[in-house]
Amino acid sequence: MNRPAVLGFCGALLLLAACGRWPASKPAAKDVATAAAAAVDSKYGLAGWAPPSNDSIPKDSLGNSIRRGLFILRHTRDSLPNYAPSSLNCTSCHLEDGTRLEAAPLTGSFARFPKYMPRAGAVVPLADRVNYCFTRSLAGNRLPVESREMQDILAYLAYISTGVPVGTKIAGAKGLLDPPDTLSGDKARGEKVFAGTCSACHGADGQGMPGIPALWGPRSFSIGASMARVERAASFVQRNMPLGQGGTLSWQEAFDVAAFINSHPRPDSPGKEGDWPLGGAPADVPYATAGHVAFNPPASLVPRKNPSLALVPAPEPVHR
Amino acid sequence: MNRPAVLGFCGALLLLAACGRWPASKPAAKDVATAAAAAVDSKYGLAGWAPPSNDSIPKDSLGNSIRRGLFILRHTRDSLPNYAPSSLNCTSCHLEDGTRLEAAPLTGSFARFPKYMPRAGAVVPLADRVNYCFTRSLAGNRLPVESREMQDILAYLAYISTGVPVGTKIAGAKGLLDPPDTLSGDKARGEKVFAGTCSACHGADGQGMPGIPALWGPRSFSIGASMARVERAASFVQRNMPLGQGGTLSWQEAFDVAAFINSHPRPDSPGKEGDWPLGGAPADVPYATAGHVAFNPPASLVPRKNPSLALVPAPEPVHR
Repeated sequence: MNRPAVLGFCGALLLLAACGRWPASKPAAKDVATAAAAAVDSKYGLAGWAPPSNDSIPKDSLGNSIRRGLFILRHTRDSLPNYAPSSLNCTSCHLEDGTRLEAAPLTGSFARFPKYMPRAGAVVPLADRVNYCFTRSLAGNRLPVESREMQDILAYLAYISTGVPVGTKIAGAKGLLDPPDTLSGDKARGEKVFAGTCSACHGADGQGMPGIPALWGPRSFSIGASMARVERAASFVQRNMPLGQGGTLSWQEAFDVAAFINSHPRPDSPGKEGDWPLGGAPADVPYATAGHVAFNPPASLVPRKNPSLALVPAPEPVHR
Repeated sequence: MNRPAVLGFCGALLLLAACGRWPASKPAAKDVATAAAAAVDSKYGLAGWAPPSNDSIPKDSLGNSIRRGLFILRHTRDSLPNYAPSSLNCTSCHLEDGTRLEAAPLTGSFARFPKYMPRAGAVVPLADRVNYCFTRSLAGNRLPVESREMQDILAYLAYISTGVPVGTKIAGAKGLLDPPDTLSGDKARGEKVFAGTCSACHGADGQGMPGIPALWGPRSFSIGASMARVERAASFVQRNMPLGQGGTLSWQEAFDVAAFINSHPRPDSPGKEGDWPLGGAPADVPYATAGHVAFNPPASLVPRKNPSLALVPAPEPVHR
């Protein structure tokens, strides 16, 4: 168990002691069934899928690339400060080195790209999807696709996709699993949930601590991250937070605390008005796009230093 | 059947009429067994693997990308004259739209990269491998990895890899299948084979015709292409030539004609002296590399116009 996990786990124990409440040990059966149905085969469902262990990474040049990719995912900020300047690492959201199916799993990702992404309005490769994380969730800059680091990240994603047939979508392939219902979050109620449940690790001011991400402000994820949508954040919180104790909060509490977290200022996301260019933005997207009115946007956003570096253009034709 | 295939087939018929000899209908059983053993599972062996049909390409945005990629493979020169100026298209070598397992198959390629390539001395992604084709086999220029065209090519490669588990090597994954034995080719004998068997389509001067590639000279593949190695060329010729009539020539005839074809001048391949940087070049590589003496090099090479564009650097770290 690495340090952030230990801290999170201790935080969760402290919280449990304070609240006198024990977490549910498993997600509700209904959620599991929904997720499994989304997978092509039960072998690739929530209950069935077992990605290869990090202990089995080969001891050769390819294995070295895979391991470098893994360590970049765990230590993104330290490894690539010019590209990931926020307080987040990849594994802040993609828990258990990207293998936790309830936390936007990266396992299987190599088999499901390229794909059409409605937000981009284009068919995009996995490298671009990784760069959406760098520019949006890590509030950083686009990592050159041909760089060793990007290729190492992709080598790790291929490794944890070993055995998944190309074109198959495993459980969690669409990102965070849908909540059982879409609830209305109340930020005043959420503030109380935050103080009681989240602040032990993330701080009363939401700014985290070493290894624990800031949840708002200039060092947090940008407004263009999926996590800035209340429903997505609620899914992550209910199933995964407090760290190691997913299922502790009720869905209403999760929506409330997500509404509270996302009511705060955070980094802007350059070009966000061009998302979902053909329309169809989900209802809770907190900024205006084609045919969509911003849902509960924060009062202000933190400008980005180099907006052009934070853009991931869709692939364009070359001059023949 | 497209025009080149028709021409090739007619040429083969003419040849057969001239020679009064009928081709073998199947590769020898020994070859099949060797290739199948190389695959992880007989489902992915020479006899078992069936890639998805082009008729099943989805009718959506991803399908459009896949179809564009397919058409670029078939019409590389017409589609991308600045990148593929030779007389070759991708499908000149990768027969049957890259699905013929005896002709350096592209089917399954999406599942076996990234991988360590001894020639490059590095772990490389599939896009770089495609660019080795552009710069070496097509004697052209590196296609920008983030371009729509490269991404469309990769989308097609993913499509014809559908169902292959990530990390699995199907039959032909190493490129052209090994010949049953390595024979010594004689270019004088090969000249006669060429005149009798190949010149009907490729021309007495080896310069091809529309849709039929030049086999030497400035419009042919470069010295850095696998096809410039006698053993690789012999494998391709014996199993696939005359077009549609693989197995016609004996292995000795194939080695002889390969030696004749590869005795001629062809485009240079910038940076070739850096191939196999850790040593281990195959015996028939026709240029000098670390610890390797050029094997039967042509008397001269055709210089490249923009050598720097013909290089595919291995992934390098970014400035952090």
